[in-house]
Amino acid sequence: MWHATVAYDGTAFRGWQIQPNLRTVQGELQKRLRLLLGQPELRLTATSRTDTGVHALDQHINFAAPCSPDLSPESVRRTLNRWLPKDVQVRDMGFAQPDFSARYDSVGKAYTYVVYNGEKCHPLFSRFVWPMRRELSVPDMQEAAAHLVGEHDFSSFAVNPKREIATNVRRLFRVEVSARNGFVFFNVVGASFLYKMVRSIVGHLVYVGRGAARPDDIIGVLNARDRSAAAASVPGVGLFLAKVFFEKDEWQTYEPQLPPFGWQD
Amino acid sequence: MWHATVAYDGTAFRGWQIQPNLRTVQGELQKRLRLLLGQPELRLTATSRTDTGVHALDQHINFAAPCSPDLSPESVRRTLNRWLPKDVQVRDMGFAQPDFSARYDSVGKAYTYVVYNGEKCHPLFSRFVWPMRRELSVPDMQEAAAHLVGEHDFSSFAVNPKREIATNVRRLFRVEVSARNGFVFFNVVGASFLYKMVRSIVGHLVYVGRGAARPDDIIGVLNARDRSAAAASVPGVGLFLAKVFFEKDEWQTYEPQLPPFGWQD
Repeated sequence: MWHATVAYDGTAFRGWQIQPNLRTVQGELQKRLRLLLGQPELRLTATSRTDTGVHALDQHINFAAPCSPDLSPESVRRTLNRWLPKDVQVRDMGFAQPDFSARYDSVGKAYTYVVYNGEKCHPLFSRFVWPMRRELSVPDMQEAAAHLVGEHDFSSFAVNPKREIATNVRRLFRVEVSARNGFVFFNVVGASFLYKMVRSIVGHLVYVGRGAARPDDIIGVLNARDRSAAAASVPGVGLFLAKVFFEKDEWQTYEPQLPPFGWQD
Repeated sequence: MWHATVAYDGTAFRGWQIQPNLRTVQGELQKRLRLLLGQPELRLTATSRTDTGVHALDQHINFAAPCSPDLSPESVRRTLNRWLPKDVQVRDMGFAQPDFSARYDSVGKAYTYVVYNGEKCHPLFSRFVWPMRRELSVPDMQEAAAHLVGEHDFSSFAVNPKREIATNVRRLFRVEVSARNGFVFFNVVGASFLYKMVRSIVGHLVYVGRGAARPDDIIGVLNARDRSAAAASVPGVGLFLAKVFFEKDEWQTYEPQLPPFGWQD
């Protein structure tokens, strides 16, 4: 099984998942890989099916295709990068075990959400943040965030929770809030997530941060198991899929990368 | 006279200068200032009429409008920023002398051009760089750049040099090349510039950097006083108007800001 990591600026994509007549990350990658490998049926699987506007620093994908000595993963990666537009990049490519699944073998994911909390974000960063002028209390958001760590029923923090799914119980390893130069970063690390869970959590933390609810009210919101008990979710523009974990406990030593990430390449 | 500084992501603008039915920075600013100040004839003057796709960290503008105790520059700036789209920001606003001109009172400008010299730029930075896969020799470009410092006839480095202008002699204070993490930065500081002069200079330095000409060939290119003696110019995507100087010798202590500029706000 082939295994690759991908980064993208989500602004001009209608999310990860392929859709007819819409520009999606899966669509852009898959059509080029099919041509490049001569595999018209090739299909990509990703760890996270990111929504419209959501960015990724470390999306993982897998696909089945024959191995050939003429086509090393490194040469495929290089050619693919030349063929791809500049808002998506393949960062690594290699072979995994035959049964590897980027989706089912991952044991955790880290998301970073970025709010610009000030008058106006610098135009060079504005496509990667959600702007919020009203001053947010970081200590209050930190206090509320701490109540979300651990195993809980997150029905109150999932948009359209899928009732057919057996449970809305999920485990969050870390929910952290920090601020720097007007930017507020939300680092949410968990084993798995419900639909729009990170954006719903950040939406409620921002609600707490601007004083509309007390930090420990979030306990009652969790217990309500009802989406309408929590505040509205925040838009995709500030959300990054920051890291995917395949090793147990890898999340413990993870250092959140804070967009726009200085000069790492 | 009012005096303001403006930053913008040039990607979605057809440059600074107002044009009918095209989205320009002057157009976006001017129509909102006219409404806000109730001055339908208000006109903006900028230090640099940046081209399509060119970014600005420190564009300076001036405009004539009545002063009123109800409309402090600070309150105008705040309202204007709320009204403006997210790719342009007014950073400072105040009153200058009645005869102040952002264009004619400036004594120098610093431009930064950014090349991504590697396989593929990270998607978060790709809208602010010109990509060049072939490896560039920084020492060769530095050697060539040194020949451009000082007063020269820059006819070879101006696209469509305006023949009606008395002279194509210009003074460059600094032409510096540095590299970091795959990015190559060109810092060009001068008293004034011919049309597309920075992009023509960088185009030729890149030509030297990839070994197509020897560094000291640039002396002959300068002496030719003929645009066709130099290599093609580079596109606007990597160009930033980085700083405008109004004080003599201010350029000497200027520290180039390297996009994406870490976390300054």
